[in-house]
Amino acid sequence: MAWALRDRTAIVGIGETEYTKRGGTSHSEMALACEAIRRAVADAGLSLDDVDGLCAYNSDRCTIVEVAQALNLQLRFTNLYPGGGNATTGVVQNAAIAVATGTARVVVCYRAICQGQHLRYGQARSGFGAHSGAAQAYASSSQAFTAPFGLMTPASIYALETRRHMHLYGTTSQQMGLVAVCCYANAQLNPRAVMHGRPLTLEQHQASRMISDPYRLFDCCQESDGACAVVVTSREQARDTPAPAVLIAGAAQGMCHGDGIFRAGRSEELWTSAGMVDVAREVYAAAGISPDEIDVMQIYENFTGQVIMALEDFGLCKRGEGGRYVESGAINWPHGRTPMNTSGGNLAEAYIHGLSLVVEGVRQMRGQSTAQVRDAAHCLVVSGPGAPPSSALILRRGQ
Amino acid sequence: MAWALRDRTAIVGIGETEYTKRGGTSHSEMALACEAIRRAVADAGLSLDDVDGLCAYNSDRCTIVEVAQALNLQLRFTNLYPGGGNATTGVVQNAAIAVATGTARVVVCYRAICQGQHLRYGQARSGFGAHSGAAQAYASSSQAFTAPFGLMTPASIYALETRRHMHLYGTTSQQMGLVAVCCYANAQLNPRAVMHGRPLTLEQHQASRMISDPYRLFDCCQESDGACAVVVTSREQARDTPAPAVLIAGAAQGMCHGDGIFRAGRSEELWTSAGMVDVAREVYAAAGISPDEIDVMQIYENFTGQVIMALEDFGLCKRGEGGRYVESGAINWPHGRTPMNTSGGNLAEAYIHGLSLVVEGVRQMRGQSTAQVRDAAHCLVVSGPGAPPSSALILRRGQ
Repeated sequence: MAWALRDRTAIVGIGETEYTKRGGTSHSEMALACEAIRRAVADAGLSLDDVDGLCAYNSDRCTIVEVAQALNLQLRFTNLYPGGGNATTGVVQNAAIAVATGTARVVVCYRAICQGQHLRYGQARSGFGAHSGAAQAYASSSQAFTAPFGLMTPASIYALETRRHMHLYGTTSQQMGLVAVCCYANAQLNPRAVMHGRPLTLEQHQASRMISDPYRLFDCCQESDGACAVVVTSREQARDTPAPAVLIAGAAQGMCHGDGIFRAGRSEELWTSAGMVDVAREVYAAAGISPDEIDVMQIYENFTGQVIMALEDFGLCKRGEGGRYVESGAINWPHGRTPMNTSGGNLAEAYIHGLSLVVEGVRQMRGQSTAQVRDAAHCLVVSGPGAPPSSALILRRGQ
Repeated sequence: MAWALRDRTAIVGIGETEYTKRGGTSHSEMALACEAIRRAVADAGLSLDDVDGLCAYNSDRCTIVEVAQALNLQLRFTNLYPGGGNATTGVVQNAAIAVATGTARVVVCYRAICQGQHLRYGQARSGFGAHSGAAQAYASSSQAFTAPFGLMTPASIYALETRRHMHLYGTTSQQMGLVAVCCYANAQLNPRAVMHGRPLTLEQHQASRMISDPYRLFDCCQESDGACAVVVTSREQARDTPAPAVLIAGAAQGMCHGDGIFRAGRSEELWTSAGMVDVAREVYAAAGISPDEIDVMQIYENFTGQVIMALEDFGLCKRGEGGRYVESGAINWPHGRTPMNTSGGNLAEAYIHGLSLVVEGVRQMRGQSTAQVRDAAHCLVVSGPGAPPSSALILRRGQ
């Protein structure tokens, strides 16, 4: 079964607040969400009165009702994608299906996060009292069987399958470090990036402190404050907007048999994957292209090892070869085969729970990135690898 | 703009667990959710392997990932509707747009609730530590300005606009009581109903204790334990399922300008409404019918006064005439013009956060209700009145 909406919807507006390190803003998450939405709508040449749909992450504390009330919106469609980083592109797909079915005309997807103000994802915590969907995932009953053994944070959970990947395929800490080095290099070109002006060498990566073996400090995404938003509408309406339309060529979401936060039920082969083999197959089928037609990609970095697994799942290289693929320079801008995370990504631009990767994908398709891939026609955007239900998106440059 | 999916999708399976009073089950919410899903899928003549989508309420503690893992599902679509009773029909619409766009083939909507095991909606509580989306709505920052004045539960919040409705339009406590009497009468025919064998008279309603003026005990929905589920697929696929297909004729969702949990920004006229005037207009346009073509209706009873407001919003009577409409007997089975809540509804069957009203709507369109409306061709299902973002559904008997 193929997705029926190839190229029928488009992203016509992007908006971002200032991105800062955790604790770097004096504004509330709600104020940042509203600012990002206003900017995205203005970028689309629309007004808030045109907006009739909102899509958000279940883990966003800025509820749709409160955001709509604050902006005085009248809505026809409201939607949440279950989770956190895995929602990155899923919210865009949900907006697309709403627009394509006439459920709404102009849908804004947003994410605001201030880890300085509320929970920190990197901090071990007891589950109860968790006030976000993401926190609830870790706080669920299954935690009773894992927390006593030290699985208290995403870093410790994801470290297990990464160590197994190293064991099975010979993936090295240095190869993972090169993922971070790539992102930091791109961030040096991007004045919005929190790590702009702070380049990273492989030596610095190797010398950084251990967080959860094999993950060192620079293998882990940042904790940031900020918000961003994108505006989705129909291809027809996109003709009237000021910026070049960026088509939603394909989108897919889902989770494989037995998946879950601890992957206990996955097949052995998929245990050292991003759990996205099916989503990858479906997103390429939806867009009608193959992996070698991807010109640029934005891959959610929760941790560097999961990026390597995602490269394998999405067919950029074979299973087990992700580390060597990174080592070959294929992901590096400007000379690599398929430059990755051209804004600096979660590691070096900012961690806005991945939605900023969609924003950068749009910039690439508009030809406006600070690390622009020449003549890029297709951008793959991959949500949080390893966190079900996963999602992915292929953007196409408009005509 | 009209919804483009009229009659293109169908509900082909329904499933329910036993319904009991709060504290009446020894099973967990998760076990009940799985049981309801299994029954709905079996009712549709399908297997769990056919299911590739799940839609849930944001306020359900049974997360999609955990449910999918427990049932070993492989999913292409996962979705949450933001809220509680307002999600009742919104989850079905979300399933329908997923199916119609080829995002998934067979989507199950479910709700499990055991107020005996976790929070009780009727109990005043401090907001922080709230572990559900619904609780979060009351726990949001706005509570700081209202809790000190006693707005601590849904009953006290909804009582305000109801008292205003009484002041403006002469609506009486007796008229509200007749909503409950209607639901209890229908429950006497329904062996699944918690209140089966416990009929209610208007005198008993009037003598019941005050919860939050003007709301007495019998004006308020029950606190129940149970789960239910419905299966949505395409009209084409519905031809192969054993039960008569019930078409999703129309669906709509949304919230009006300035709406919110305390309605502070609504226009004065809408303040004593269910906030669903726009949703009503859109759901009728989507289905291509008018209010007088509704043969039977299931209207979410959070409180009896909100039902009266919903009858007005959905054009069963004029603004301000809802009380007298109820008094006329128009909602009573079998002789009323448009029988309502034929299973007993939230008041007298069980409070499964409204999804049981969708199940009863399907039964009516199949001709299988215990209070069957003869030759019923259209059933209106209205989600929690007054709670944004609202949603509504019109079901049509299949050919």
